[in-house]
Amino acid sequence: MHPTSPTEVDRIVSRAADASAQWKRSTIVERSRALIATADALDANADTLIPIAQRETHLAEARLRGELRRTSFQLRMFAEMLSDGLWLDARIDHADPDWPMGAPRPDLRRQLEPIGTTLVFAASNFPFAFSVAGGDTASALAAGNAVVLKAHHGHPQLSEATTAVVVGALAVAGAPDGLFQTIHGTEAGVRALQAPAIKAASFTGSIHGGRALFDIANARPEPIPFYGELGSTNPAFVTRSAAARDAAGIARDFVASVMGSAGQLCTKPGVLFVPADSGMLGELETQTLPAATPLLNGSIESGFSDAIAATRAVAGVRTISGAAEADAPAPVLFATDARTFGADMDALMAEMFGPAALIVTYQDEGELLDIAARLEGQLTATIIGEESDEIAADLIRVLSEKAGRVLWNQWPTGVSVTWAQQHGGPYPATTAVGTTSVGMAAITRFQRPVAYQNVPEALLPDALKETNPLRIARRVDGVLVLP
Amino acid sequence: MHPTSPTEVDRIVSRAADASAQWKRSTIVERSRALIATADALDANADTLIPIAQRETHLAEARLRGELRRTSFQLRMFAEMLSDGLWLDARIDHADPDWPMGAPRPDLRRQLEPIGTTLVFAASNFPFAFSVAGGDTASALAAGNAVVLKAHHGHPQLSEATTAVVVGALAVAGAPDGLFQTIHGTEAGVRALQAPAIKAASFTGSIHGGRALFDIANARPEPIPFYGELGSTNPAFVTRSAAARDAAGIARDFVASVMGSAGQLCTKPGVLFVPADSGMLGELETQTLPAATPLLNGSIESGFSDAIAATRAVAGVRTISGAAEADAPAPVLFATDARTFGADMDALMAEMFGPAALIVTYQDEGELLDIAARLEGQLTATIIGEESDEIAADLIRVLSEKAGRVLWNQWPTGVSVTWAQQHGGPYPATTAVGTTSVGMAAITRFQRPVAYQNVPEALLPDALKETNPLRIARRVDGVLVLP
Repeated sequence: MHPTSPTEVDRIVSRAADASAQWKRSTIVERSRALIATADALDANADTLIPIAQRETHLAEARLRGELRRTSFQLRMFAEMLSDGLWLDARIDHADPDWPMGAPRPDLRRQLEPIGTTLVFAASNFPFAFSVAGGDTASALAAGNAVVLKAHHGHPQLSEATTAVVVGALAVAGAPDGLFQTIHGTEAGVRALQAPAIKAASFTGSIHGGRALFDIANARPEPIPFYGELGSTNPAFVTRSAAARDAAGIARDFVASVMGSAGQLCTKPGVLFVPADSGMLGELETQTLPAATPLLNGSIESGFSDAIAATRAVAGVRTISGAAEADAPAPVLFATDARTFGADMDALMAEMFGPAALIVTYQDEGELLDIAARLEGQLTATIIGEESDEIAADLIRVLSEKAGRVLWNQWPTGVSVTWAQQHGGPYPATTAVGTTSVGMAAITRFQRPVAYQNVPEALLPDALKETNPLRIARRVDGVLVLP
Repeated sequence: MHPTSPTEVDRIVSRAADASAQWKRSTIVERSRALIATADALDANADTLIPIAQRETHLAEARLRGELRRTSFQLRMFAEMLSDGLWLDARIDHADPDWPMGAPRPDLRRQLEPIGTTLVFAASNFPFAFSVAGGDTASALAAGNAVVLKAHHGHPQLSEATTAVVVGALAVAGAPDGLFQTIHGTEAGVRALQAPAIKAASFTGSIHGGRALFDIANARPEPIPFYGELGSTNPAFVTRSAAARDAAGIARDFVASVMGSAGQLCTKPGVLFVPADSGMLGELETQTLPAATPLLNGSIESGFSDAIAATRAVAGVRTISGAAEADAPAPVLFATDARTFGADMDALMAEMFGPAALIVTYQDEGELLDIAARLEGQLTATIIGEESDEIAADLIRVLSEKAGRVLWNQWPTGVSVTWAQQHGGPYPATTAVGTTSVGMAAITRFQRPVAYQNVPEALLPDALKETNPLRIARRVDGVLVLP
């Protein structure tokens, strides 16, 4: 794909800023309509889009159809969420001459407003759900912002085709011209990130690339929030009692979670801790691994080869299943013991983005707490256990400080889009520990609070008017009031 | 005050991290009790603390007594706020095998948890309310975090005395040892900011100093949120009809707002736009300015002298009232016209921290919209107008994109502590546009979301248990449910 020229980037950002100023004033009904129209158009164009996606990403048709369904569902869920207005966090404090602070309280009303024109960097591994019409686009539009989308070089044709569908749907729904636009090329992305009119940016990708963009966003004369989802190894811990209960089932489900989408998921459980003297390792050794399939693109393939070579090079690590060759991008399982792991944790916790995982055997469950306490930030952490496990409560507590999502007896891949989902954790899992990129809470990353003091009813935003024309829940004088 | 040595900083941070891990597990009742005990102790020690504050800051006794009352009120308000649990943003999604996303929805439960050990940089101009036991300390403790407080060099003795009161009160309330500790010295502050155990930092002060610390926080191997409140000029716009209605009253109230606390407030209205052919300028010229008083400290005095000298040096700016000397730290009002202002907006919008303001005369109200659109981020923006003003709606809309708080016919100083307060705006007003440093919403800056998937009832945090033992409002399957 032709990279977007600097002049073109500037023109696109300027057009987006104009559209954002208009879209900020759109009603909830208008935003919902635009999101639903986009969802409908994506579904209607599935048979056109899926083959392009297959060709460009090598992902299987069923997986891509599921992902497109997830993508349109996500747009519709944001549309539905808008109606109750909780996302506005509307607060009204009436004037109070006897406010015990020592000075009269003025009339103060606060809501969350659109943050402004948003730049979204698409990911390679979800060409629909974390790309052109993905989660960040959906939530930025829902929040009332225009979007400039930096396409991923791994699926340029699909990005263009999806953009055409989105732009067409938005136009039919009456959204302002320029509300959604796509740019191509690394330099174009950096130029947009530095443009004064861009007020927030989001990214899903590698630690290296994401940190570089995070640094650029912070070095701007006016720094902007940069929501980067970077990398995660997603450790999983099997307790002694769980291994005794169902070693075969755990091994089977773990391998399925690791190998799905050829391991190219940010929530793939990359390291599994199992009791050394259980049957777990044997069960894992006998699992049939899937056949090698091409990875998303050349840079993912070479990155994967490098990562598995680095793991294999650590003394005390052995290959227990899969690829014999040193660096083929084929499914592989490694194993080592907790002592080796603990001595070289940085290297062995490094993400291997692709169909690989490391099994670590431990002697004593107490070792798990020590390892958990030393973890860097993660998107997820998983415990396969029994409720009666003595270690359970402590392990959950330690892991909740390290990961954005803690799972019990389920596997972390397959991130559901819900109200309570949290996809984001301490660095390096993300650059913004307070937000999520999946689920309905994601809308807050593209909002900013504004308070109005003593403003007459007629001049207040609808959400803050005394008459509550939007009929939304609000916090009034400190008390939550339902409509 | 003896600067805290590197070894001592490391010991303090380590102790804080231990305390934070314990405090994270404290109950709402325990946290409330600690906050109220601190408030009570501050009030009980007022007669000891106030004279130290007067001596070190040159602020008047009445102002300091009011500020201390605000400070203890703030602690009590956070304590009260904890009980309804809305600050936990608890969300529960029950498992749903028919979730229309295309895959079954797991049981997911999400709440906001303590972000971890917090570093707070105290401000000079509010030696109580934005210092040792100020807003950030109160909200960080309320959220469940330990606090390391970097004292401001402008009031070291008061910082030590206040620290002793806080530490004593927390100990009596049963809080863990090391929950609140104070350090002194610029280098100590930087060392703490770089310590891996520090998970968030906040700051109130100058653009220069705040940006430097923001850059350090972002350059860490693990970047952390840095909530800096830096600088703001807080423009105020008087419409033609308002000037016609009450020029004398507006002039009087404006000068009172500018000159309160010798102009050393971050919300001081530093630039006032008035119609050229009204009586406003004449009324402003005849206002009696207060006598010069010493400013907070030597660096504030020299900064103020430099700032007013820079304003005075702009061709087309004249002194209409106050100090004749070129650089004395005495009250002064400058004036210019909108053309001069528009041609040198960067210089003339620069904050003059102290008892000074600039009056800008305009010919046509349309000029106000142009100027507003060119503003950098502000903490506040004020309109003195009539509801029937044609420009009102547009001006509010433009200013709401530039400022965190928009006021109508009131002045921005005297920031009330309430549920709906917003103290924070786009850069350079703050480094984190999504948060506030005053009011009850401030607690979110020291929290991070964590989701629990499929975790058994007994192992869930209380706020997420099916039985709702805390009796708090929660979003259940998307619907807000009151207890």
